[in-house]
Amino acid sequence: MNSFGRIFRVNVFGESHGESVGVNIDGIPAGIPLKQEDFLYDLGRRKAGAKGTTPRKEDDLPFLKSGVFNDHTTGAPITILFENNNTRSADYAKLREFPRPGHADFVATQKFGGFEDYRGGGHFSGRLTLNLVAAGVIAKKILGDKIQVNATLKEVGGFADAEEGLAAAIAAKDSVGGIVECTVDGLPIGLGEPFFDSVESNIAHAAFAIPAIKGIEFGAGFAAAKMKGLEHNDPIIDASGKTATNHAGGVVGGITNGNQLVFRVAVKPTSSTPKDQQTLNIASGEVETFSVKGRHDLCIALRVPVVLEAITAMVLADFMMLEARIPRVNK
Amino acid sequence: MNSFGRIFRVNVFGESHGESVGVNIDGIPAGIPLKQEDFLYDLGRRKAGAKGTTPRKEDDLPFLKSGVFNDHTTGAPITILFENNNTRSADYAKLREFPRPGHADFVATQKFGGFEDYRGGGHFSGRLTLNLVAAGVIAKKILGDKIQVNATLKEVGGFADAEEGLAAAIAAKDSVGGIVECTVDGLPIGLGEPFFDSVESNIAHAAFAIPAIKGIEFGAGFAAAKMKGLEHNDPIIDASGKTATNHAGGVVGGITNGNQLVFRVAVKPTSSTPKDQQTLNIASGEVETFSVKGRHDLCIALRVPVVLEAITAMVLADFMMLEARIPRVNK
Amino acid sequence: MNSFGRIFRVNVFGESHGESVGVNIDGIPAGIPLKQEDFLYDLGRRKAGAKGTTPRKEDDLPFLKSGVFNDHTTGAPITILFENNNTRSADYAKLREFPRPGHADFVATQKFGGFEDYRGGGHFSGRLTLNLVAAGVIAKKILGDKIQVNATLKEVGGFADAEEGLAAAIAAKDSVGGIVECTVDGLPIGLGEPFFDSVESNIAHAAFAIPAIKGIEFGAGFAAAKMKGLEHNDPIIDASGKTATNHAGGVVGGITNGNQLVFRVAVKPTSSTPKDQQTLNIASGEVETFSVKGRHDLCIALRVPVVLEAITAMVLADFMMLEARIPRVNK
Amino acid sequence: MNSFGRIFRVNVFGESHGESVGVNIDGIPAGIPLKQEDFLYDLGRRKAGAKGTTPRKEDDLPFLKSGVFNDHTTGAPITILFENNNTRSADYAKLREFPRPGHADFVATQKFGGFEDYRGGGHFSGRLTLNLVAAGVIAKKILGDKIQVNATLKEVGGFADAEEGLAAAIAAKDSVGGIVECTVDGLPIGLGEPFFDSVESNIAHAAFAIPAIKGIEFGAGFAAAKMKGLEHNDPIIDASGKTATNHAGGVVGGITNGNQLVFRVAVKPTSSTPKDQQTLNIASGEVETFSVKGRHDLCIALRVPVVLEAITAMVLADFMMLEARIPRVNK
Repeated sequence: MNSFGRIFRVNVFGESHGESVGVNIDGIPAGIPLKQEDFLYDLGRRKAGAKGTTPRKEDDLPFLKSGVFNDHTTGAPITILFENNNTRSADYAKLREFPRPGHADFVATQKFGGFEDYRGGGHFSGRLTLNLVAAGVIAKKILGDKIQVNATLKEVGGFADAEEGLAAAIAAKDSVGGIVECTVDGLPIGLGEPFFDSVESNIAHAAFAIPAIKGIEFGAGFAAAKMKGLEHNDPIIDASGKTATNHAGGVVGGITNGNQLVFRVAVKPTSSTPKDQQTLNIASGEVETFSVKGRHDLCIALRVPVVLEAITAMVLADFMMLEARIPRVNK
Repeated sequence: MNSFGRIFRVNVFGESHGESVGVNIDGIPAGIPLKQEDFLYDLGRRKAGAKGTTPRKEDDLPFLKSGVFNDHTTGAPITILFENNNTRSADYAKLREFPRPGHADFVATQKFGGFEDYRGGGHFSGRLTLNLVAAGVIAKKILGDKIQVNATLKEVGGFADAEEGLAAAIAAKDSVGGIVECTVDGLPIGLGEPFFDSVESNIAHAAFAIPAIKGIEFGAGFAAAKMKGLEHNDPIIDASGKTATNHAGGVVGGITNGNQLVFRVAVKPTSSTPKDQQTLNIASGEVETFSVKGRHDLCIALRVPVVLEAITAMVLADFMMLEARIPRVNK
Repeated sequence: MNSFGRIFRVNVFGESHGESVGVNIDGIPAGIPLKQEDFLYDLGRRKAGAKGTTPRKEDDLPFLKSGVFNDHTTGAPITILFENNNTRSADYAKLREFPRPGHADFVATQKFGGFEDYRGGGHFSGRLTLNLVAAGVIAKKILGDKIQVNATLKEVGGFADAEEGLAAAIAAKDSVGGIVECTVDGLPIGLGEPFFDSVESNIAHAAFAIPAIKGIEFGAGFAAAKMKGLEHNDPIIDASGKTATNHAGGVVGGITNGNQLVFRVAVKPTSSTPKDQQTLNIASGEVETFSVKGRHDLCIALRVPVVLEAITAMVLADFMMLEARIPRVNK
Repeated sequence: MNSFGRIFRVNVFGESHGESVGVNIDGIPAGIPLKQEDFLYDLGRRKAGAKGTTPRKEDDLPFLKSGVFNDHTTGAPITILFENNNTRSADYAKLREFPRPGHADFVATQKFGGFEDYRGGGHFSGRLTLNLVAAGVIAKKILGDKIQVNATLKEVGGFADAEEGLAAAIAAKDSVGGIVECTVDGLPIGLGEPFFDSVESNIAHAAFAIPAIKGIEFGAGFAAAKMKGLEHNDPIIDASGKTATNHAGGVVGGITNGNQLVFRVAVKPTSSTPKDQQTLNIASGEVETFSVKGRHDLCIALRVPVVLEAITAMVLADFMMLEARIPRVNK
């Protein structure tokens, strides 16, 4: 469904070419300073416009519709609305005929019986990640300054240098994927909840809500499958829990162990490649040549880091509030 | 927390060396034939005893404590209990002194203030995957015969041939990791729920509850990050949604597209390696040489396939019941 | 928290004198005809303006911000926003000094540390029942025409005749309470979910979210406590489950039994009485005479029926979708 | 469904004449002293055997199957099992023919297609309240000594004196209902969560899970509907929030206000009256004379107080842990 989190509870809504997209966030403590300006930096990082991103530019101004009073959170649910001003729905009329490969067009029609808002991907659009970024801004405030969440591009189109990968994509006139790594420093020991709400479980859950993510790994990740036990184990070297290596990526038994949290996600190439594609024409029932029009990112991975930070902050803020709930008997 | 699922709702409990482990499952329709024998095949597949697995053998008999009457489900919650008969807790007394690298010992003590049942990993133990397997048996019944969930070992210790990988581990006297792949055939189009309950989100969530899983990827997964759009896109070739390739792994926009669902998980090497390790002695505050006693698997990945099938079936059964709830207007 | 329901999931937000109030509804099937006009009749029934209700009149126009396309639901979450145009916040400045008896002013300040939006009751205001009425309109569409939800005033200020009760209140220059009864005809047998989601549990849960409700009873209700078993029992008289009497109010074992669902709620007198009151002056620490200004209903019970219908329809729609999820083996 | 609560999360299971009834409780902090003996006092208060209660006596010994180690909670889910030793299922065979008026027999068969465990009411049986009492014992420990929950019989069969009411029932050879009042002293201000999780909402939700409850009212309750505003309002008389009267029953705006929490429930007469009844014979399709055999309480209200205390403690413990989660910025 469209909500996530237990205490820090996020509900997203909206469609790419509908009237608006937005997010409703419940469970936020009262008294946190919050105003429109606080969102602009991270929203700007997500924004299109750089080389390799879509020419569609929205103002992306977050309107605070509820839950904020005198520039502070009130403890009531916060609703943030983004208007859709810059839509060109005519681009999408053709999609009813040619469900775009890699997109949700076909499954959405099957699932929602043709009633879905198909324009620009509708509710499946990457535009809804605006909501995640906005929620992430609030989550980062709950984490505070000591906890630093930082996501960066590690690879674009197979190149460690993003510029190089992008240049290759532009040269090939095709879209490319990438890898984004997220690290978190300053975490306390003990976040995460057995059995089903491990740190990995909840971060992976939220990460796979980001369109185009197809894999996630923590610490050594898939490389761990080729390692031996002695090599992979991280020896604890002091009473604070610091480990000599960090193959676990900061999570043991699903619980933060006080070391840096590290994970990576695989981002598939943008499905809307500029290249001609072969796919089914629903009307004719034949496979035909099809070309995606509209404005699209060559490499969606470029816009993923701030979104990945956002969902990570959301999950961690939720865990921190869950943990705080329990006045441990021995504390 | 210890529950998972929206309609097919699983609650796990128990400790490795406590009195029992068990699972409570709510939301199961009435009238499904169910008796103890139905569980034995999958429980047997999970069982220790093969080369590379722990010598600890429990009977692993599932006792149906509620929710079943006249060998059918009643619609009331089903509780299944497994007794712990074959425990050697003395093995674990030393753990209080040496928190085992790679295990939850250290974080558990920090999180639960020393009150956790530390014997054999307690509530963090892989023994709790018995509960998942049991829940999976019921989930598979809900999926029915047309939907086939099948998980297999793809790699052990870096070798595609599991026997070879295991032999290398035995020779090296060290534990090894592995890769397990799960496929599902026969799925209808349309399972999965935007925005946060994508098929990938929910499967990843449940998969990371399995101890030792450190990565997951769907379809082409991490390889997709190096592909170009035209190469990665799966052209739709007929009105049933069949695609020419399956780089998406059967999930587009988070929704099943009617093709084979495919994903892989990375399993880290068993943390309880037979080798000597360096780690902190809590009492002395010094890093010392430590050797794990007790009975352990050399390669925990060997026991993962049936568990991975189980969580996959759980997630899919939940999605099927969620989907069925909605009498679409146009149907 | 601010959400309710399992499948038909409602999230309310907003403040009385903030920018807006609104509601986000998840879980609605695609393909239900829905446009702004559909809401006006029920919103009009809730509206102020009749004798005994507040002179504050908002346009109460529902703006559909998401989830609707071509005048049909899309299957994506529906967001409905109401603007607050007609606020007089100056009326409420004094409340910081005199927490109004019967209102949430005092507890809100304690709970939210003074950061709450105190204007007009803020998030505690009866204005948020707009959201419930809007959600109820959609819920009624899911119930369909065969299921009729109907709430009526049974008593105002102790008089069975509402006009009479209101006249007495106006004469006394004091506010009054009332009793509202809700009936539902046409329900199928079998709605409600053991153990914790009985029909009574979920309706009571939602009903007590309506400000001013202080009691609820089903069927014979409190009178049942004085009855004998033979008198109270409703004999089943045919295979459809029809009973000779209906002391159970249509619910047995927490499950609908196919007879008319009947329940009543007690509405306290509007706390904002026109009369002078004695209460604490926070600044002086003394009990002083206080008089509520602002515009208020003499009898809030007059506006409760349509709200009670709404929450009833919400709960029943949720149960119907929960029930539909289960393809009973024997059906 | 069979779970309740957000942090203090209770899952009940079992059937009256099945193998066992039990409860799984998640979210309990580690380090709370807990052993079998701690449950016996409250379980004893619920026990049958006094005048007016059923002659069926079970040992009602709670077996702690998980979550407790060295006589303390571990932070893992706690499972408590009660065995059913003293069942006489033969008594119930006839029920398939005559669905008992007032019982869930008829609706259960309709809902679960005849697969329900019908013996002794199965999953609908009052025997499941054992689970609530057990959960309540743990909840009371979380509340601590300063918060006192106390429920008492206020009325039996219309008599304020329970003995008198019971004597009248015995004389009439019929079952009777009653009224139970619950008070809580020592509560902090601020428990309860807008908009849907008011104190009244959550207590009512849980209370209506207790079989035979047909009404609930807080403070003045239904009497408030006949009062005027000035009379009903509780003037605040000091900075601690103390009020001169307590018509609100300690809850304003759905939030505890620091005064005594007071509410009452209406308990219907036991449906299994010793008197002959007229009801449908399913087989013949005719209304016939029917007489309930088996062992039953004449007045189930006698056993309600400890159960009502339990659900109240559960709800309040949940609220306290929800409240504690939030490190208010201004604290």
